[in-house]
Order: sequence, then C-alpha cells, then structure tokens
Amino acid sequence: MGLPSRSLATAVEALFADEPAEPRMHTSAVPGPRSKSLMDGINTLQDQRAVYFVQDIDKSIGNYIADADGNLMLDLYAQIASIAVGYNNPKLLDLARSDKFVRAAMNRPALGVFPPTDWKETLDEAFMTNAPPGLNQVFTAMCGSCANETAFKAAFMYQQAKKRGDADFTAAELASCMKNEAPGSPAYSIMSFAKAFHGRTLASLSATRSKPIHKIDIPALNWPVAPFPEVQYPLEANAAANREAEDHALAETEHLLKTHPVPVAAIIIEPIQGEGGDNMATPRFYQGLRALTQRLGVLMIVDEVQTGMGATGKMWAHEHWNLDTPPDMVTFSKKMQAAGWYHNMAMRASQPLRNFNTWLGDPIRAYQAAAIMQQIREYDLLKLVNEVGDYTLQGLRKLEQQHPAVMCNARGQGTFLAFDVPDPAQRAAIVENIRKRGVNMGVSGHQSVRLRPMLTFQKKHADIFLSRLKDTIEAGL
Amino acid sequence: MGLPSRSLATAVEALFADEPAEPRMHTSAVPGPRSKSLMDGINTLQDQRAVYFVQDIDKSIGNYIADADGNLMLDLYAQIASIAVGYNNPKLLDLARSDKFVRAAMNRPALGVFPPTDWKETLDEAFMTNAPPGLNQVFTAMCGSCANETAFKAAFMYQQAKKRGDADFTAAELASCMKNEAPGSPAYSIMSFAKAFHGRTLASLSATRSKPIHKIDIPALNWPVAPFPEVQYPLEANAAANREAEDHALAETEHLLKTHPVPVAAIIIEPIQGEGGDNMATPRFYQGLRALTQRLGVLMIVDEVQTGMGATGKMWAHEHWNLDTPPDMVTFSKKMQAAGWYHNMAMRASQPLRNFNTWLGDPIRAYQAAAIMQQIREYDLLKLVNEVGDYTLQGLRKLEQQHPAVMCNARGQGTFLAFDVPDPAQRAAIVENIRKRGVNMGVSGHQSVRLRPMLTFQKKHADIFLSRLKDTIEAGL
Repeated sequence: MGLPSRSLATAVEALFADEPAEPRMHTSAVPGPRSKSLMDGINTLQDQRAVYFVQDIDKSIGNYIADADGNLMLDLYAQIASIAVGYNNPKLLDLARSDKFVRAAMNRPALGVFPPTDWKETLDEAFMTNAPPGLNQVFTAMCGSCANETAFKAAFMYQQAKKRGDADFTAAELASCMKNEAPGSPAYSIMSFAKAFHGRTLASLSATRSKPIHKIDIPALNWPVAPFPEVQYPLEANAAANREAEDHALAETEHLLKTHPVPVAAIIIEPIQGEGGDNMATPRFYQGLRALTQRLGVLMIVDEVQTGMGATGKMWAHEHWNLDTPPDMVTFSKKMQAAGWYHNMAMRASQPLRNFNTWLGDPIRAYQAAAIMQQIREYDLLKLVNEVGDYTLQGLRKLEQQHPAVMCNARGQGTFLAFDVPDPAQRAAIVENIRKRGVNMGVSGHQSVRLRPMLTFQKKHADIFLSRLKDTIEAGL
Repeated sequence: MGLPSRSLATAVEALFADEPAEPRMHTSAVPGPRSKSLMDGINTLQDQRAVYFVQDIDKSIGNYIADADGNLMLDLYAQIASIAVGYNNPKLLDLARSDKFVRAAMNRPALGVFPPTDWKETLDEAFMTNAPPGLNQVFTAMCGSCANETAFKAAFMYQQAKKRGDADFTAAELASCMKNEAPGSPAYSIMSFAKAFHGRTLASLSATRSKPIHKIDIPALNWPVAPFPEVQYPLEANAAANREAEDHALAETEHLLKTHPVPVAAIIIEPIQGEGGDNMATPRFYQGLRALTQRLGVLMIVDEVQTGMGATGKMWAHEHWNLDTPPDMVTFSKKMQAAGWYHNMAMRASQPLRNFNTWLGDPIRAYQAAAIMQQIREYDLLKLVNEVGDYTLQGLRKLEQQHPAVMCNARGQGTFLAFDVPDPAQRAAIVENIRKRGVNMGVSGHQSVRLRPMLTFQKKHADIFLSRLKDTIEAGL
C-alpha cells in the first residue's frame, strides 16, 4: 500500500517547500547572544537553567528549528519528541485557522459535563481510526503525567471492584477514605521497571526510576521496582544471552509481584525507555510480562507517551510485540498532542465522577491529533519512518565501526534510535558540538544520545545528521 | 478609575450584541432528544453518566450556553467556573485567529528547554500585570491538579533545602530515592482542610477531602486534615460565634502541625471551598493561619484554581484577607485558562530539571490569559463583579426570607456565591427544574447550589436568574 518511496519523499518534501537544503548557522555557539539576552529576561520570572536556546517559532520550518539568533538547525529532538509532522506544517496551520478550532480554543469545554456536538466524530477521527489493536475506549487528559495518574486510578478501582463484586461501598470504606485510611483508601501499588520514566506528579514520579535528580526530596510511595532485562545490543546478535537476561528479569518480576508487601494493581512499562536510556528488550520479554500479569490478575499498562504515534515504525510501539491479548491500558501524549489512555469497557469506573476532572482533555488537541493521523495515512509516514530509520541505524552502526572508542550500542526501532557514549562528559561535548554544526539533539539515561526526529524525517536529513556526527567525532569532540 | 457603572455595563453588553434578551427553551427537558442521541454515540467511547447535556459551541454567546437541541440557557456554571469573559468573546476569537496564536498552537514548545522569543513579554502580560501582591515569579503547568502537585514538590524541596543548607545531596539520599525510600524520598505531608478540593491526581487527591466518591478505592498518603471553621452565615451577623469557631479550628490546626507523625511541609487552603460546599471564613482566620505557618516554618499554599481571576470581586480572593506577608505559593487554573502557581525566588529548586516536565504549560493559554486580563482592565470587570455580586446576594437573601424552608445561608464574595438547600434531593430538583426554565447551574458540597457566572454577568442576568429561581421554588420544585 501507499506511494512508492520516491514519490512519498517527494510528497512530504512538497509540504515544506521552504525547508533549507542544510542547516544555516550564524553564531559560533548555541545559545547565541540574542538567545542569552532573552534567557536573562525570562530568568527574572522563570528558571532558565535547563534551556538550550530560545526558539523562533515563526521561522522554524519542517524538520528545522530556528533560534533567536537566526540559526536554523536540523531538529532531532523535536520539543522532547512531541512534534509529529514538522514545524509550521501548512495543513496544521490551516486547521488552527478553522472556525471550529478557533471556537473550541476560546470556549474550552468541561468535556465530562458539556461535551460539544462533534465530540463523537472527533473521538473517532483523533483516537479510534488508529487505536491500538483490541482497545475500543479512550479516556482523555491534559498531559502524559495526568494520563498515567488517571490510568493508575482506573487500575485501583478495577481491582477493588473485582474484590467487591456487585456489593455497594461499605460505610467503613466511605468513612475511612475521607481520612486517607484503609479500607476506603486501600494499599495498592503500581510496579514499574528500573530506569523507567512515567511522569512527574507524585504517583507517576513514584513509578519513575530514571535518575535521582528527578526524584530526590519528593516523598514517594512504597511501590516495587522490577529489574529491566540487562540485554546486549544489537538484540538479534546476542539472542542467547538476552534470552537469559529476560528470563531472569521475568522471574524476578514474578517474585516481586507475589511477595511485595503492597499488593500490585498494575505494572506499567514503556516499549523503549525513552528517558531512562533507550533500553529495550525483545518481544518475547513483553509477551512474558503479559502472560504473567494475566496469570496473576495484575493489569498491564503500556506507557506510549514517547513511543506512540508512529516513531518506532508502527503506530504503537507495542504492536511490535504481537501480543495474544492487548494490554489493559495504553497511555499517550507528546506527538499525539492530545493525552490520555486507551482501554476497554472493563476499565470504566463503576460510577460517574470517580475518574474525572474539569477539562478531561482539550478538543483542540484532539482536532490536532486527527489532523496528524490524517497526514500519517496520506503520506504513508510509517513506511517513511521504517525506511529512513533502517538507513539511519545502518549509518550509526557504520560510524560505530569507525569510532568504537566514542560510540556503541546503536539501537532502536524506526527513527526512535539511540547510541551510547563512554561517559556523560563526552556525551555533553557531542551534543554541544553537533549543535554548533547545526543539529539539535537530546540525551537519555546516563550515557545515551537519543534521536527523536519527526515522522517527516527523510533520507536527506539522515545524511546531514550522519555526516555532521562524523565531523563532530573526528574533530575530537 | 474605570467607567461609571452604566457605561461599563453598556460597553460589556456591546461585546455580545447577539446575546438574547432572555433564555430560549425549545425542549421540555434538558437534555433534550438530540443531546440524548449524541450522548448515546459518545457513550460508546467515553462514560457519559456525568453529562448534563451536549453543548453547541458555535451558538453559545456571551453569558448564554446553547445546547444541541437549540436551547439557549443563561449559564451560571460556565464550564465548571472556567469561562471568564463570555462564550465566543469577539476579542478572544480575534486572538485565536492571530498568526502568533496559530503558530504557537501548532508548534507547541517544550518551554523549559526551548522557550519562544516572546516568552518574557507573554509572562509579563499574562501573569505579572495582575500577580498576587508580593509574588514575582510564576511556574506554568497544564491544569489545576498539576499546578498543585508541582507546588507540593516545591514545598518538599524547600523544606529539605532548609535542612541541608549549602551541602550537596548525600550518597545515601541519591541511592535511596531510587528505591522510593528515606532519606532520599523523605516523609513529608501537605495539610489540607476538611471538605477541601485540590485536584484528582494522587497527591492532590490526598489533599482533597470533598466527598467519598472522589476518593474511594484510591490509595492515599498519610497526610493530616485540619477542621475547617464551623461558621454561621452571614459571617458578619454571627461574629462572636464565628470568632470562637475560627479560634477552635486554628488551635486544632496548630496541634496537628505539631503532632502529626509525618512532618508538614506546607498547608494548602482555598479562599472559598469551591467544590466542597462554598465554605468560607473571615479574614481573621486566614491571617491566623499565615501567622501560624510562619511561626512553625510551614509553607502556605493558597489554592485559587476556582476563586482566582476576579470572580470574588478581587483579582485574587486572598486579597480580601489583607495578609501582612504574602502566601508562599498561589495556584491557579480554570478562568485563567493557563495554569500554574505564583511564588518568590525562595521556591525555585536548587537545580534545574527538578520541577520540570515536557511542556511546562502552553503559550496559547498564556496568550489567552493575557487577553482576559486585558478585558478585565478595559471593562473594569472587578467593579462589575462587585456591583452585580452584591445585587445578586441581596436578591438571594430576599428569596431566603420568602422561602426559608427551601433555601438558606446565601453567602460568598463578588459573584462567587452559593446557598444551601435542605437536602440533596431538593437540590437536584431545583437544578433540574431551573434548567428547564433556561438557567444552567452547578452544585457544591452536600447541599449547596453554587453560582459561578462569568465576569461579564450583569444586573439584567441576575434579574433573570433570581426570577426563575423564584418561579422554580414557587412551582413546588
């Protein structure tokens, strides 16, 4: 299906006729003087210490981000993996100028009390046309952390409902929950995996195990953390060792599920750990987890906040696993722009107003998700992601062979790729120096560089990235 | 300052030239048949049990909400208190059509890494022109729950930094936080007040004490709940008894702060408990709380998610308290459309990436907040809120005298008003029947009806509401 690859690339190129042929750098360092001056101004009101540079939204185009100093960089970070189909995408700009978008933006509804007349159609177009296989319901929210938090709540309610059967809440439950005490506020946990990232609010942060700086000083719940398989890359070249590592992780997970003092309502896992170091395992591991959760009556939440919406070459990264039974919930945000989670009827709460809030998502972000879905189909972007992803991974592996002391472990799916660098200092040098050469990149985990280009990333962009990475390394970092 | 009241009302009226003179009802019940049919469709994908009716965003205008059946109702609920200056406000629609809005909407930035060139100016216009007195920093977020969760995190980090001084994190802290254990994940609590509502994510829900249906089955933190003063209304007519009730609550709060097993990092309180029953106290109570928190080294967070942005007749409801020292943090969302919290430099985290997430708010909602602020000034809407609020409260009190068996305890500030009904069944009848007469309303707490009109609510609207409330009551509910 779809256009042949050449026509496909041409069609995507035509979307961004003004995209430059290569990066254009005007300052010797990024951030340049104008970025720095603007950051000083913002810093009087908001902390600027994590800022890379100040961006010029108007001048960014397609796969290129513009900064305040007039630099135009090939963007492989894409607002922390959240831009799907290019900056200033003309079809998205048209959507934003449409009457329905304008009115929904300025009259944001409380969707759980006053849904708008087009809400069913919007849910279909934004969420159901490309829903994960086997899931037919969607809960909408405002961001990735909120998506995970509300999915956790659904898991707790589900487990209590399973115990309670058709019985009403008891008087003791109703009274004790107002004091934050059992039985109304039961002890339940969510199990996550070492190095996972699931968000920043207190419960989602309790499931997050990425880095101390994300967690330190914040009270945390007594929730179990399972080991993530200590695999070797490339996965296929280390099949026997990886099988053993995965079996070990599965056995430990089962042990924890059976023995952790706080009963586990659900496990949550990312298909590729997008913040904690781009760690991944083989489909067999995730199939084992699904079987284990089903056997033990624990729910399985797949966190596709970063992996969802096509970047791994499938709409949903967990489709790579070929599960017999779908996960119970799949959470999303970022590239989807709309946030929330897919589920089935079993995850609906027993009564209204239980999993609820004022906005319950935002129709304009659903309109945007629908328009992005439409472009993924129209331009066959999954095919493009697979082709360009394979090409880029091969290029990274070739560079690894040339520079084994600087980079290794190139890995990933689609264009959701990463490689490792010996230490954080060398990694910082690579990212800073390749930015001077016009490529904007991000990092993950302790020593990984992550590629998070848009779905419109083409072979010509991969060539620019690979040659500038080579130049950066060969210039001695 | 400002126009005389008559010109003011005329200017606001001119904004909504198409607003009807009174509600127009076409169906005998709400939801009508078209709403019901659309709800059936949405219900195949999302729970519809909390839905009042399906709204027609295009046809809603000013203070009137349109539904799918062509009914046009005076809206005193305003998307759960989140519409500030009228439906389809022409100046807001112009904003949404502007190039800067369109581009920011479709290129949503990761504000903490790549802020846009106009971000300082936007922060000034949206947040600083009407910042709470004494606070000069703003942390931006996506919704009210996220605003409170990130404010809690700031409180925990502040308290640990106070203990730690200039010392670095210890190795034990860095290691233990990855296991969700002390000392890296310390035991801290947030104290809230009986019947408070602070959000729906796990930590904000632990501080929420509104109703069992909001909390049951969800694990909760061992956090203390202080009594809210059991005052009598009108506050001014019961000064002596209320003084005693407030002293009692303050003494109990002090006792809990000193004895709760989990150290209290901060207290959080709403100026009027907008979800838990529109409970309020006199300024003296809040002044006492501020003095107490300062004496004990506990932070004070004022949750103005529902009360902020003018509805109480001041920009921030806590301005009614005349505190000597500002609160440490003031959280906001809803009518502001943008969410987050105000603070001072002391609440900045010691390092970047600690209180952080992908989007850190949304520039388009900041643009919208700036445009709403501009209209509040241009039309002197605080003056309008005070005048119409006083008029409406007098009308409610007159109705109470006529129907003491049906309603009592009319109370509030500005147009942020409420009254009590003997029981939930009678309250449901009032809300359902006044909706048939063309007035859309919400409820709070166990037996209160809450008024949450927009800031553009005028005397003519108050007259319609009061006369239809009278008719509803006199028709026997």
